Amino acid sequence: MYIGVDVGGTNLVVGIVNGEGDIIAKAKCPTDTIKPPKAVIGDILRLAAEACEKAGVNKAEIKSFGFGTPGTIDFEKGAVINSPNIPLMNNFPLRDTIQAEWAIPVYLVNDANAAAFGEAFAGSAKGCESMVMVTLGTGIGSGIVLNGKLMMGFNHIGAEIGHTVVVLDGWECNCGRKGCWEKYASASGLIALTREKMEANPDSKLWEIAPTLEAVDGKTAFAAAAQGCSAGKAVVELYLDYLACGVGNLVNIFQPQVLCIGGGISNEGDALLLPLIARVEKGSFRHPKNNTEIRIASLGNDAGIIGAALAEV
Amino acid sequence: MYIGVDVGGTNLVVGIVNGEGDIIAKAKCPTDTIKPPKAVIGDILRLAAEACEKAGVNKAEIKSFGFGTPGTIDFEKGAVINSPNIPLMNNFPLRDTIQAEWAIPVYLVNDANAAAFGEAFAGSAKGCESMVMVTLGTGIGSGIVLNGKLMMGFNHIGAEIGHTVVVLDGWECNCGRKGCWEKYASASGLIALTREKMEANPDSKLWEIAPTLEAVDGKTAFAAAAQGCSAGKAVVELYLDYLACGVGNLVNIFQPQVLCIGGGISNEGDALLLPLIARVEKGSFRHPKNNTEIRIASLGNDAGIIGAALAEV
Repeated sequence: MYIGVDVGGTNLVVGIVNGEGDIIAKAKCPTDTIKPPKAVIGDILRLAAEACEKAGVNKAEIKSFGFGTPGTIDFEKGAVINSPNIPLMNNFPLRDTIQAEWAIPVYLVNDANAAAFGEAFAGSAKGCESMVMVTLGTGIGSGIVLNGKLMMGFNHIGAEIGHTVVVLDGWECNCGRKGCWEKYASASGLIALTREKMEANPDSKLWEIAPTLEAVDGKTAFAAAAQGCSAGKAVVELYLDYLACGVGNLVNIFQPQVLCIGGGISNEGDALLLPLIARVEKGSFRHPKNNTEIRIASLGNDAGIIGAALAEV
Repeated sequence: MYIGVDVGGTNLVVGIVNGEGDIIAKAKCPTDTIKPPKAVIGDILRLAAEACEKAGVNKAEIKSFGFGTPGTIDFEKGAVINSPNIPLMNNFPLRDTIQAEWAIPVYLVNDANAAAFGEAFAGSAKGCESMVMVTLGTGIGSGIVLNGKLMMGFNHIGAEIGHTVVVLDGWECNCGRKGCWEKYASASGLIALTREKMEANPDSKLWEIAPTLEAVDGKTAFAAAAQGCSAGKAVVELYLDYLACGVGNLVNIFQPQVLCIGGGISNEGDALLLPLIARVEKGSFRHPKNNTEIRIASLGNDAGIIGAALAEV
């Protein structure tokens, strides 16, 4: 048995995961963004004990403790360099502090990488030799699994696919570059494209779905398009072009067996998937027989817990 | 001992390579683009015998036969699907035909992948755990070596980094996409940028170096810039921006220990390398201590022979 911790923006979730990638039990509490590190550690240890009890598992049966966390991870220190959800955890020796209580291996994994590993190990890409996952949320999270292992670069900070430029000199990204894929193809990108269209089309149905620009979310354009709104359809088409551009790049680089789409936008299902597949088929190198399957992620938030528990084991 | 064959546009070169990646002997003849496959096979077998003799190696000591060839490789058939240098070789059963004469394993590898493997095994990235190579020639060839193995995708047609879009809706590429990196950052891209500048600047020094647009090559702009020509400098700066955009993307995806630049343009040396490094440092995620080293390839055409011989062994 293995412990996987999802250090999310909303909840701190601890799961007990078996060697097959099944979650046996979970325990959670809200993420408190201004809690001092020692109190967060206290929460984690309490949730771990609670999850073990729920699962009917003894502490002695737990082989390792894995964290899936946003931010850049310092693998040598076992700390998060820039922890966006709990800023006070920046550079806090998370690994050593946990290990002082549980004398077992403790791993830290970037949350997008953890989600990719979870989907590859037990979800939509189970049994595949290679997969790339992109998570369409506030940004674009991404992970790459090759031969059953995460590909993170020699310094463990790679797989930042959202920060590849696809529009030279395009929109400014907070990473410092211009035209990064995530500026256009994340949920935030879709929201920006939707707002732009609404401002140019004051009579469109988009305004019925989102009465103000602040009310726009990642579903607005898809909902309008489903109701026949031409402005909504145009936004969705444009968004799909941006999304397919980056996915086509990934196919040409990795030719993975599966490319998995997760995050909030992936809830659109076939309305997203089918036109995306059609675009990528035109915009990437094709093999006579064997081509990348594009799939919607199947594990939701559980992917991150499973991946955190098992990625480094 | 291993045989590596470089099926180049100019020469067909056969090399005898030892397990350390040293070329012991070579034999070559011009590539005849309209020769029927059986005659090409005859050339290859003759050159292999000649190279063995030069190396003082018996046929029985040769453990495998590897081809580095442009075009898409059908790994199941052991054939080249679209052989640009020798079109009559398209879909010809190269592996089986060679194996009928030499009863040893025969491998086919894309030439850009072979060059990357050669540089990783015995050249500029020797001893590195991960490397990405881009070859700036007519197009951009590329290869990715992770943990001592080529990463080619599950269908063996990946690592086509030149065909990742960096300028959405940009220049049309013959792959069918628009705005592929190789349209801008290959030698052909540099030539196109140089010609564009010359047409707009009829008085620039560029015209002294290349008296006609047809005379422009990949050295023209660098030569003019070195002589203080402002138009030439502007072309080089623009070219470096395009090159650094794609290299920054690769660093953010792979964070390889080494990123190696080969091909004709790499002969510019520090005039290319130093401003490229400065741009990539600004345009990619940086680790506090460990960052990708960008290097010029060191083996020239030998990289392809060494890689062809050893990549699949």
